[in-house]
Amino acid sequence: MAAFEKIILAQVAKAIQRYSLIEEGDRVLIAASGGKDSTTLAWALSALSKTLGFQYTISAIHISSDFCACCKKIALRDLLATWDVPFDDVPVRIIGRLKPGRTMNCYWCSSQRRMELMKYAQEGNFNKIALGHHLDDILETFFMNMTQKGELSSMPVRLDYDKYPITLIRPLAMVEERQIIGFAESAGFRAKACTCPYGKNSKRRVMREKLAQFTGGDLGVKHRIFESLHNVNMEYLTGLKAPVTH
Amino acid sequence: MAAFEKIILAQVAKAIQRYSLIEEGDRVLIAASGGKDSTTLAWALSALSKTLGFQYTISAIHISSDFCACCKKIALRDLLATWDVPFDDVPVRIIGRLKPGRTMNCYWCSSQRRMELMKYAQEGNFNKIALGHHLDDILETFFMNMTQKGELSSMPVRLDYDKYPITLIRPLAMVEERQIIGFAESAGFRAKACTCPYGKNSKRRVMREKLAQFTGGDLGVKHRIFESLHNVNMEYLTGLKAPVTH
Repeated sequence: MAAFEKIILAQVAKAIQRYSLIEEGDRVLIAASGGKDSTTLAWALSALSKTLGFQYTISAIHISSDFCACCKKIALRDLLATWDVPFDDVPVRIIGRLKPGRTMNCYWCSSQRRMELMKYAQEGNFNKIALGHHLDDILETFFMNMTQKGELSSMPVRLDYDKYPITLIRPLAMVEERQIIGFAESAGFRAKACTCPYGKNSKRRVMREKLAQFTGGDLGVKHRIFESLHNVNMEYLTGLKAPVTH
Repeated sequence: MAAFEKIILAQVAKAIQRYSLIEEGDRVLIAASGGKDSTTLAWALSALSKTLGFQYTISAIHISSDFCACCKKIALRDLLATWDVPFDDVPVRIIGRLKPGRTMNCYWCSSQRRMELMKYAQEGNFNKIALGHHLDDILETFFMNMTQKGELSSMPVRLDYDKYPITLIRPLAMVEERQIIGFAESAGFRAKACTCPYGKNSKRRVMREKLAQFTGGDLGVKHRIFESLHNVNMEYLTGLKAPVTH
């Protein structure tokens, strides 16, 4: 097994155990965009189902939009089949649902997709939805929220919904993007990954560069920043003994 | 009044009101190192005592150490006198208190000074101790704690002690260092400021440079980072609804 495969499995297993992301009997729905991240996630959750020592079910869903004709759904289905991951494809009207005068944007698209995902998960009795965000995504979001929104927040590793009996999990939270790229290249699916035709989030790209400069790519620094998200000393932020709640 | 004087007074007044740093009847002891920051603080608190619309008392204390012979205490006393700030000097053995075999370090020195400061404040019936840390100090500490300790924390704007009837305040928390430098130069005390002979905190200097690169010196970005310290969304950091407490 290549070095990055080992590292990915070790870090996913660590995150699963540390944050109780997956437990005995869980039915986990993987949101498979067709991109390198969620495809790697599907592989990792499949591989770990044989070694973690408890039973859970995984399945992948791909939400097709009405503006992406390039999706290599069949290739994705075939790839996931080699890892014994069942696959389903749900076509959703994204542009078609826009009200007159409104233009396409990431917020609209992702909220429509998230809605379909929740619906599908509930109908299929899934209690967990697994998303493919990795360590670099989480750190970028943290720094973007801090510098643009003036808020300490990011994409949580685990999020329980109030309204639904569903928990959102991010098992790749401790995996660096470069490991995922290494795996995707060695497994030969990097070139086949879908990219969104609208996808050019320049603010995120700028932050990615700033962050690379700031951390110097030092994994120790990146992990300590990640750790800090779960190690909040309220008294020494706000000076208030009573923690701030939202 | 020069531009930076106006900015400093506006930002100190804002911090005082926003975080209830000083209130009617407070007795505020300023920890005056002789450096530009705490000297500027003494000036600002003196100037604002005439305009904030409520009464408070200020006084400055300088803790002299047994290793700093260069202190321009008399110059500091005279300068503070021009702003009607009473001044006291307390000599403390810092090196002299070291146990055999121990070497001098910042942690030891600052804890010894802090101890003397608390003692003096209690004996003088001061209920607030004002420290000269500014916006850049607070952001640097935040980033250092995050990347080195893996903790979200900094120097709080206001900290109530459990053991003492004393509150620590940092009225310069929203003031950039460059404003302080501008004021210190125009008021002619920049060159007279004391610097510690041991003072070369290289980790802090490295962080200062990294941070300047990261923010590009953009005041908006710096203020949003500062705001984020008081705007913690626990659920989107840890995924836990119950806040983490220390």
